[in-house]
Amino acid sequence: MRYAVLGTGVVGRTVAAKLATLGHETVVGTRDPQATLARTEPDGYGNPPFAQWQANDFAVRLVTFTEAAAWADAVVNTTAGAASLEALTAAGADNLAGKVLIDIANPLDFSTGMPPSLNPVDTDSLGEQIQRAFPDTRVVKALNTMNCEVMVDPSRVAGEHDVFVSGDDTDAKKQVTELLVSFGWPAASVIDLGGIITARGTEMLLPIWLRLWGTLGHADFNFHIAGTRTSA
Amino acid sequence: MRYAVLGTGVVGRTVAAKLATLGHETVVGTRDPQATLARTEPDGYGNPPFAQWQANDFAVRLVTFTEAAAWADAVVNTTAGAASLEALTAAGADNLAGKVLIDIANPLDFSTGMPPSLNPVDTDSLGEQIQRAFPDTRVVKALNTMNCEVMVDPSRVAGEHDVFVSGDDTDAKKQVTELLVSFGWPAASVIDLGGIITARGTEMLLPIWLRLWGTLGHADFNFHIAGTRTSA
Repeated sequence: MRYAVLGTGVVGRTVAAKLATLGHETVVGTRDPQATLARTEPDGYGNPPFAQWQANDFAVRLVTFTEAAAWADAVVNTTAGAASLEALTAAGADNLAGKVLIDIANPLDFSTGMPPSLNPVDTDSLGEQIQRAFPDTRVVKALNTMNCEVMVDPSRVAGEHDVFVSGDDTDAKKQVTELLVSFGWPAASVIDLGGIITARGTEMLLPIWLRLWGTLGHADFNFHIAGTRTSA
Repeated sequence: MRYAVLGTGVVGRTVAAKLATLGHETVVGTRDPQATLARTEPDGYGNPPFAQWQANDFAVRLVTFTEAAAWADAVVNTTAGAASLEALTAAGADNLAGKVLIDIANPLDFSTGMPPSLNPVDTDSLGEQIQRAFPDTRVVKALNTMNCEVMVDPSRVAGEHDVFVSGDDTDAKKQVTELLVSFGWPAASVIDLGGIITARGTEMLLPIWLRLWGTLGHADFNFHIAGTRTSA
């Protein structure tokens, strides 16, 4: 399976490294690979420049959004939420048609100050916006409710905890669930919420996630829905 | 401790019954007690009329919002979110001044169809609106993230699960935490998120809660934050 991970930030790197480790052919897509590779300074979050990560850790090729999407069997969106529609437009609707797109992005809006707000929110979601903009792509919202280290190594968090999937295409959700299981998620911890409209609910977990991150002082936590397997 | 529970719906009845069972002097407040007591039909959710509940289950007095707030040491808001500010205005700022107000309401907005949206949302919350409108009242948002049966009997949900408190007054949150412990919540399951601004995060759990309710087909579930007591 050929995976294109769109986005060169820490989420994209972490997911790309996991996919490569699992033996999947993997590329990372970005707007301007030469510009990304030319960077020599850490990013605003203190992450090393992409070229250093690529040299030290994983020989994952960096290509344009378009090349990545055209080459891949499935696509993972890890771009910043505010830039996701633009990135996917650059990837090209034809290159995305028929493919599963795992949308991990959250539409955080820093223009209102801290804590960030969400845009869209409540009556729409980024997941739905992407599905509407690319109707021939099979969008599955998943993994957007936790830190990226937890996404690819759920054992970092003690006890039972869950990952949500939202999407209109049942086969696509099944395929994503199998990938999640290969990441280490127990199948019973993958909660299918329903159609892509339910991405509203998971994107709206971000405000409390951000608050808990501050309160707990670490990111190795996650949501668990207690009582899913019992009824009183 | 004298508690005034504002709101005659199933949440108000359930919380009032629990408070009375624990030996607290408890009244229920409503806009027009005579009109409420005159009802002989079940409400829109199939709950029996208030007078029948009162006769069958608990001899809790029904009084006006104003009388309830004036008499009580602490107030619990279980009115519909869209009607909460009006109900609290009727209760009277002077009658609420200095008192702890536990806000369980969620600002569900059914005007946009189903599923309901939230108003306010994201950059404001009902909890904050109430605190701003009643600056001399010590507002603590709590219990708004679960079914009312679970609020007063956490053992209905198997395994660890949590209740969040948000508020600007540390002593008020301590008092509410003690009440929650008396309801059966382990102290370690009461997560203090910070100031009343964090009510945004808990109110925004409602969309995924409503979706899970539909998916699971029962309401005996709750959120648990896994990993709060470990750090990797």
